[in-house]
Amino acid sequence: MISVANPNIEDIPQISKEMKLIERELMRAIEESEEPVRGILKDFFAGGKRLRPKLVLLTGLCFSPVNMEMIYSAVAAELIHTASLIHDDVIDRSDYRRNRPTINYIYGNHTAVIAGDFVFAKAFELLCRYNLNRCMGHLIDAIQEMCHGEIMQAVENTNKKVDEDYYFKIIEKKTASLISACCKAGAECGKAKEEDIKKIGLYGLYLGYVFQIVDDLLDVIGDATEIGKPIGQDIEEGKITLPYIYFLQDSTFGAKYRKVLANKSLIAAVKSELLRDIKKSDAISKTYAKAEEFAKKAREILKEFPDSIYRNILVELSFKVLKRKR
Amino acid sequence: MISVANPNIEDIPQISKEMKLIERELMRAIEESEEPVRGILKDFFAGGKRLRPKLVLLTGLCFSPVNMEMIYSAVAAELIHTASLIHDDVIDRSDYRRNRPTINYIYGNHTAVIAGDFVFAKAFELLCRYNLNRCMGHLIDAIQEMCHGEIMQAVENTNKKVDEDYYFKIIEKKTASLISACCKAGAECGKAKEEDIKKIGLYGLYLGYVFQIVDDLLDVIGDATEIGKPIGQDIEEGKITLPYIYFLQDSTFGAKYRKVLANKSLIAAVKSELLRDIKKSDAISKTYAKAEEFAKKAREILKEFPDSIYRNILVELSFKVLKRKR
Repeated sequence: MISVANPNIEDIPQISKEMKLIERELMRAIEESEEPVRGILKDFFAGGKRLRPKLVLLTGLCFSPVNMEMIYSAVAAELIHTASLIHDDVIDRSDYRRNRPTINYIYGNHTAVIAGDFVFAKAFELLCRYNLNRCMGHLIDAIQEMCHGEIMQAVENTNKKVDEDYYFKIIEKKTASLISACCKAGAECGKAKEEDIKKIGLYGLYLGYVFQIVDDLLDVIGDATEIGKPIGQDIEEGKITLPYIYFLQDSTFGAKYRKVLANKSLIAAVKSELLRDIKKSDAISKTYAKAEEFAKKAREILKEFPDSIYRNILVELSFKVLKRKR
Repeated sequence: MISVANPNIEDIPQISKEMKLIERELMRAIEESEEPVRGILKDFFAGGKRLRPKLVLLTGLCFSPVNMEMIYSAVAAELIHTASLIHDDVIDRSDYRRNRPTINYIYGNHTAVIAGDFVFAKAFELLCRYNLNRCMGHLIDAIQEMCHGEIMQAVENTNKKVDEDYYFKIIEKKTASLISACCKAGAECGKAKEEDIKKIGLYGLYLGYVFQIVDDLLDVIGDATEIGKPIGQDIEEGKITLPYIYFLQDSTFGAKYRKVLANKSLIAAVKSELLRDIKKSDAISKTYAKAEEFAKKAREILKEFPDSIYRNILVELSFKVLKRKR
């Protein structure tokens, strides 16, 4: 395992000035809303890692000095991400996120559906107001991909289909597409060439894979307090993520759990045993190795860009995303 | 009551060519989506009155010959309206709309929330692709108003507050704001002057009031087959609309129902008696008179624009919206 001095995505001192500006504009976007919407949303924005705005900013800075297009696109990216989380929590009936009760838990599904719509609209308001149409295009593509991923999972809700290929298809749509779009949007704001925008988008795509694989890993081996929600939620909801796909291939445990994992209603009863056994199997190290492989791929792409402090932070970020604890 | 030759909003022969084009582009927007999204959405778009695209088109034509900006803005307006209906059906737990089962009824809330998000994104994709930023601005404002209206109703979900002022505040946000935005968007596409855009927006606002008042009236006295959903849904959900506000002021029935309507859980038991009594009261005629008053106000504004066949259709539309049966 590669060592990284500071695995906190939160902490990137080289861009702290710009991130403060982004944070201020993000809060302004929420605070300019009328009550009761403002009160409902304000808490929900606290405590995020702000990975997506950081990517917009850093990819932009690889191509140009900072400009307000980067700031507003970064804010819009975080708004879109947050809107999708609000709707995800409704869909997954989640009670907790970032160590806080979710909007659906406090106010009900009704309010959460609309609050998500409102936050999406806020993002487009910013992108529209500052004529950031090229960024908007990338972000809209990503939203559509995210929706496709969600609906595929819902409609084809059968665990029979879940293999590595299907898993990567889904995480590309549900997570990596937005992370990739953030990188493309940043590069657009930096007036990068078409070719470079595509390349940096691919960096984002691989980084997105790493992010989601680690997310799925943390749901198995993470610390509930640190990640802000209970462990084992995925499998409880019948989501067969990469660690479980590898677990089913394990020679010691695979056969034992094949039937259980194919039937959602059987899972709850064996959850704690399952979580213990998966840690004894090779599934965890195989999953981690896969994430590592994509982090390396992401870094390979960055080699094609000129050396700069911001490129180096993007390199470092691939390690941070891999080694994160929350 | 004013008589109108043809009360069908559907039937406006003077713009049938343009409406066919809008319909084709609307279907294209859905059909270019991947499965399973396409299949889920296709049916849901059938059978709408297309009031909002008609308004974009007609207000545009008041200021300029037809152009593709009008067509795409009209399509985007219908997409936004449809997305909001999909989410409304989730929120209201509605099983039927336009004589068909809703998306949440067939596929569940999960899929319906995401399908709505997808349709919103489709609208923005069109507006973004054709750089219709001024139209987008009006439509985004309307979406935010709609969300505010929904959340106000949800959070302040107490019937104590419901009086005429509150009712109009809510229907302005929930219905009239989008209808008004459609008129402003159309005028933008027609390159109208700022002043005229504001005026036509006011026409839309009043027309929106008429539309919603009549909607609320049809929920009391309409024909279930014609409107495509059961009668009395509003009151069953505890929504005190204008007919009920006037009913409570009625000298014969008001006192009898005051306590019942203040308590949602008491309503279901007396629903059929309530629907019979409200028809005997003066609530229906008072509500209709109110709608008539706003239809007249809408027409007053149109007098400030030069005579044209399209202005005259907008005049006629104020009667059609008032006298519609579905």
